Amino acid sequence: MKKISLLGATGSIGIQTLDIIREHPGEFRLAAMSIGKNIELARKIIVEFQPELVSVQNYSDFDTLKAEFPHTNFTYGDEGIIEAAIYEKADILVNAVLGSVGLNPTLQAIECGKTIAIANKETLVTAGHLVMEAARRNYVSLLPVDSEHSAIFQSLQGEREKNIERLILTASGGSFRDRTRNELEQVTVEEALNHPNWSMGAKITIDSATMMNKGLEVIEAHWLFNLPYEKIDVLLHKESIIHSMVEFHDSSIIAQLGTPDMRVPIQYALTYPERIPLPSGHRLDLAKIGQLHFQEMDLSRFRCLHFAYEAGRAGGTMPTVLNAANETAVAAFLEGKIRFLQIEDLVEKALDNHQAINYPSLSTIQEVDKETRQYVQSLL
Amino acid sequence: MKKISLLGATGSIGIQTLDIIREHPGEFRLAAMSIGKNIELARKIIVEFQPELVSVQNYSDFDTLKAEFPHTNFTYGDEGIIEAAIYEKADILVNAVLGSVGLNPTLQAIECGKTIAIANKETLVTAGHLVMEAARRNYVSLLPVDSEHSAIFQSLQGEREKNIERLILTASGGSFRDRTRNELEQVTVEEALNHPNWSMGAKITIDSATMMNKGLEVIEAHWLFNLPYEKIDVLLHKESIIHSMVEFHDSSIIAQLGTPDMRVPIQYALTYPERIPLPSGHRLDLAKIGQLHFQEMDLSRFRCLHFAYEAGRAGGTMPTVLNAANETAVAAFLEGKIRFLQIEDLVEKALDNHQAINYPSLSTIQEVDKETRQYVQSLL
Repeated sequence: MKKISLLGATGSIGIQTLDIIREHPGEFRLAAMSIGKNIELARKIIVEFQPELVSVQNYSDFDTLKAEFPHTNFTYGDEGIIEAAIYEKADILVNAVLGSVGLNPTLQAIECGKTIAIANKETLVTAGHLVMEAARRNYVSLLPVDSEHSAIFQSLQGEREKNIERLILTASGGSFRDRTRNELEQVTVEEALNHPNWSMGAKITIDSATMMNKGLEVIEAHWLFNLPYEKIDVLLHKESIIHSMVEFHDSSIIAQLGTPDMRVPIQYALTYPERIPLPSGHRLDLAKIGQLHFQEMDLSRFRCLHFAYEAGRAGGTMPTVLNAANETAVAAFLEGKIRFLQIEDLVEKALDNHQAINYPSLSTIQEVDKETRQYVQSLL
Repeated sequence: MKKISLLGATGSIGIQTLDIIREHPGEFRLAAMSIGKNIELARKIIVEFQPELVSVQNYSDFDTLKAEFPHTNFTYGDEGIIEAAIYEKADILVNAVLGSVGLNPTLQAIECGKTIAIANKETLVTAGHLVMEAARRNYVSLLPVDSEHSAIFQSLQGEREKNIERLILTASGGSFRDRTRNELEQVTVEEALNHPNWSMGAKITIDSATMMNKGLEVIEAHWLFNLPYEKIDVLLHKESIIHSMVEFHDSSIIAQLGTPDMRVPIQYALTYPERIPLPSGHRLDLAKIGQLHFQEMDLSRFRCLHFAYEAGRAGGTMPTVLNAANETAVAAFLEGKIRFLQIEDLVEKALDNHQAINYPSLSTIQEVDKETRQYVQSLL
């Protein structure tokens, strides 16, 4: 029985993690969780899964739930998430919160020796050097939950790092794959939220449309798999069936394939190095799909991906700026304050405006994150 | 430095194995080899690679070469191949001979504890139970050289047998993939020898056109990976880029991809569990290829594949009959004695004519092999 602490239980990855726990009552148990403000859903989760510890964002929700569920332990705020992350009875932390709030809990859990299933991109994008160093020092495994990184991780089983020629991250191309830059000028929020393959949260769906999501994944892959950026390629593959690949120096390629179902990589992270059946999973039928398509990635068409490579190569605080600027710009787009292509303009301006600081500490990262958000806000 | 004994050095796989040895003089050395009758090529190989022991098929060739190369040891005939197979200074045996002549040397080499890189299909098809039992008893590794089995073997690294849902062998469809059965009535030997993707020997190219090659591979996979036939599927994939796949019970699929270059699986078998660069290898460019196609396999269109599954399921001596009948029929087709579709008719008749003997010994297998050839000859 693996006991799980789940940060971000009411988000898209959180809910699918709960699906996996529900499907395997003999294998997994929800020991602790954190949620944001969706206390309606939190109530249902508490009733069904009976976690021992629940952290909420606000004091008032904490107070409300505490009265409703006298046999559950509650906590709240930034300290609350950390408490849930390092909950001592949990064997593994699934970090599925959105945004940079996921960083500190991950670092704390690593210091406590927890295995980390990581779905929070910002943790590695903004503080990959701190996270990987802490993981090495504490002999902690970082297990990817993103479908692309899980595909690479699965493809690397039984293989050696030194034999890797390159990673090939596949990209569906998002909602606007087939539109020209001109056609992108006036796209609406609703159009952007309509992803062809994956059902995901709003922020990541917009990131898929701008290709920033793939850029963040490139930076994550750099840290997770300890490879330089010139060994990480992106390939357009509109069906999202090959989830990513590894090319070795003997020119052999190992790939992981499947239907677009996030529960498969989530479950793999929870069962690793074992696999267990996923009875409700859909088997891939390649004959039915018939064709898979591949296309070169055009970095001038998808400027956010270009910026991500640039920020990754520059290193230091640059990826923090990339991420913070993007989060702020995407939020502004979702609120109807800016047009779609302004997202990349704002990211570009923020990067131009920043002088990279090498080997930043956690507090430097948090400071740069805050400054960047303020800077982008000032441009709106 | 790995010392190699190579059976069938002048055949298609043999020559490509020599390419690998040539490309990595610091890694591999040809210690022993067997050839058939192509002593012209044998001379060149002896001069270039200077093997210590050479076995030829006929006494007269033995006599000729012995006089020409006084510093090389020669041997000949069935005993000669065995001598080369168990050559004590060799670390690994590459069995790339064609036909059932490969069986006994493999068994002898296994008893001597040699690692076996196996490209000879007949060994596993006709005597899988004996070979696998001997390999287990002697703690010997059997490393596949066929691109499909190598793909599965590579995909299984770091994975556990019990988690396999099924193997998916891909099939290009051979020279006549797009023809109807009616159109197959009058095809010529030249047309059949024109394989779209792979450059191989004549017999295996015909076997690709009849789909018997895939049938033999299904039986090989059954033995190599210890799986029942209902867990081994075949999928038409005309580009031969995905070389085969493994589906696990969590619905995740791991696949191996590459350009159609037999040197990759040959080298993998020689370096396993390590990989080394293959500088002359062609990197796969999926964006350039653009599309991969997949199609259900039609067992009524490709009757030889159906017969192979039937023979495999029946077990015992049935696969020996399948293989011997096919070899005889293909030879007759190549000699212009029968039409293309008669190959499958002859295989069917031979199977119908035989009563399976369970757990056959080596001598029973050899006897049934001989009887089947005579029976098929009698039908010509």
